Amino acid sequence: MKRNELTENIFRKKSFLCVGLDPDIRKLPACLQGSDGRRVADFCKAIVDATAPYAVAFKPNTAFFESLGAPGWEALAEVVAHIRANHPDQFIIADAKRGDIGNTAALYARTFFETLDVDAVTLNPYMGEDSVRPFLDHKGKWSVILALTSNPSATDFETVADAKGMALYERVLRRSRHWGSPVDTMYVVGATRADSLDGVRAIVPRHFLLVPGVGAQGGSLEEVAAHGMIDECGLLVNSSRAIIYASAGEDFAAAAAAAAADMAARMAPLLPARPHLRLP
Amino acid sequence: MKRNELTENIFRKKSFLCVGLDPDIRKLPACLQGSDGRRVADFCKAIVDATAPYAVAFKPNTAFFESLGAPGWEALAEVVAHIRANHPDQFIIADAKRGDIGNTAALYARTFFETLDVDAVTLNPYMGEDSVRPFLDHKGKWSVILALTSNPSATDFETVADAKGMALYERVLRRSRHWGSPVDTMYVVGATRADSLDGVRAIVPRHFLLVPGVGAQGGSLEEVAAHGMIDECGLLVNSSRAIIYASAGEDFAAAAAAAAADMAARMAPLLPARPHLRLP
Repeated sequence: MKRNELTENIFRKKSFLCVGLDPDIRKLPACLQGSDGRRVADFCKAIVDATAPYAVAFKPNTAFFESLGAPGWEALAEVVAHIRANHPDQFIIADAKRGDIGNTAALYARTFFETLDVDAVTLNPYMGEDSVRPFLDHKGKWSVILALTSNPSATDFETVADAKGMALYERVLRRSRHWGSPVDTMYVVGATRADSLDGVRAIVPRHFLLVPGVGAQGGSLEEVAAHGMIDECGLLVNSSRAIIYASAGEDFAAAAAAAAADMAARMAPLLPARPHLRLP
Repeated sequence: MKRNELTENIFRKKSFLCVGLDPDIRKLPACLQGSDGRRVADFCKAIVDATAPYAVAFKPNTAFFESLGAPGWEALAEVVAHIRANHPDQFIIADAKRGDIGNTAALYARTFFETLDVDAVTLNPYMGEDSVRPFLDHKGKWSVILALTSNPSATDFETVADAKGMALYERVLRRSRHWGSPVDTMYVVGATRADSLDGVRAIVPRHFLLVPGVGAQGGSLEEVAAHGMIDECGLLVNSSRAIIYASAGEDFAAAAAAAAADMAARMAPLLPARPHLRLP
C-alpha cells in the first residue's frame, strides 16, 4: 500500500487505529473450538472482521503464531490472506522485529513480503543499514524501524547519549531516514514517551510513526497526537490487548468492535482538517 | 547443556567449531529429492551426521527455515530432534536474533527452549534487559547476545562512542554481563573485528564468545584465538557456507566433513593445555 492510500484511508475512516493481533492461546475465548492453530486463526479473523470498520491497519505479532510451531505459521498465513481478501483497504504490519544481515535479511524480506504478502515489517536497527537495506529493496513495501520503544529498559541503550549529546534512538532516526524515505520507512516510537515526540518530529517531520503503548502500558492518545501528529496525520496508534481481549465470552468480537469504535471516536477529533494529498 | 559440559566436549574433541546450518533452497545439492521442506531437512541431517565428529555445536539459522513457511518450521523441528537423538553431545544454538519484550519475549523463549528444545538463542539487545530477561528465566538455557557483529554497517551504531568514549557494544557487554552470568550468557563478536577482542575480554573475561565471520567474511581463526581464547577456551567459532556448501554434488556430505575436519585440525593446536575444570 502506498503512503497516500494509507493517508486517504485515515481521513476517510477518521481513524489512525492499528489493531495488534497478539493471539495468546491461554487467553482465547472458550467458545472457540478445534486445534490451537484453528482457534488462533478463527479468533484473529473474527477480531479483524469486527474491528475493520474502525481501523486502518492490523499488526499480527509473529511471536504469538510462531509459539505454535508450523500450525502457527499456517494460521498467520490464513489471517493475512483473510485480511487481503476481505479488507483490501487495511495496511498489514508483521510485528517480527527482525534484525539480521545479507542473505538472511534478504530471506526474511522474501518471507514477509512475498510468501506472506504483508505491507510492512518491524525491524531492529542494532546491526545498522545492512539489516534494513534488503527490506527496502522490495518496492511498495515498508520497513518499520524500532527507534524509541515503550518498555522500561529502553533506557538501557536507546536513550544513552553519545559524545555530542545525541541519544542512540536519535542517531537511529538521523542515519536511517536517508536509507529510505517517508514513502517506505516508518518508526516505532512508544506512547509512554510522548514528551520525546517533539524531538522525534524535529528529525523525521514527515515519516509515519507506529505508536504502541497507549492504554495498557499507560500512554495517552491525546498526548501522542499533540506531539506527534502532522498535517497528513503520520501516526498509526496501536492497541492490542484492550481491544482483542475486551471480552473472554462469546461476545468477544462484538466487545472488540466496541473497544475499537471507542478508540476511533477518540481519534476523530484529533485529526487535522483534511489536507491536500499530493504525496507519491 | 551446562558450561562445563560444553568445555569438556571442546577439549575432548579438540575443536571449538560451530557448524552454521543455513540451508538456502537455491543452493541445495540436486541429488536431494522431495518437497522443499523435505530437502532442507534431509540436507541438514546429512550435514550434521557428517560433521558432528569435528564440531561441538550446530547453529541453525531460523530465517532459512522460516522462508519456507510452515514446512520450514517442521524441517527445523526435525533437524533439532535429529541432533538431540543422535548427537546428544552437541550444543544447539537457534540463530534467531530475536529482540522483543514482556509477553512476546516470554513466548519466543518458550518456542525455542520448550517447543524446539535448543540450548541457546541469539538475541538482539537494542530494547534492553526486558528483551533478554524472559530467556534467562529458563534455567539451563543460554542467551547469546549480539555485541559486535561482523557486517560492515556494525559501525552505524554498535561502535559509536558515548560521552565517556564507551562504544555501544561495550555498553551492551558491561550492562548485560550482570543480567546473567558466564553459565547462561554468551556474546556474538565478529571475527572480522579480532582486534576488538582484547577489549571485549577486558569486560567479559570468562563468557563464551560466539564468533562468526571466519572464512567467507575474511576473519582469521588464528587472530580470533590469539585475542579471544581463555584457559577454558571460551570460544565457539562458527562456519556456515565454507562447510555446508563445500560441494554441490552427491558428495556434499563427505565434502562438508572434510571441510569441518580441516577447521578442527586448525583449531586443535590453538587450544591451551587442558585446564582444571571446576566450573558449575
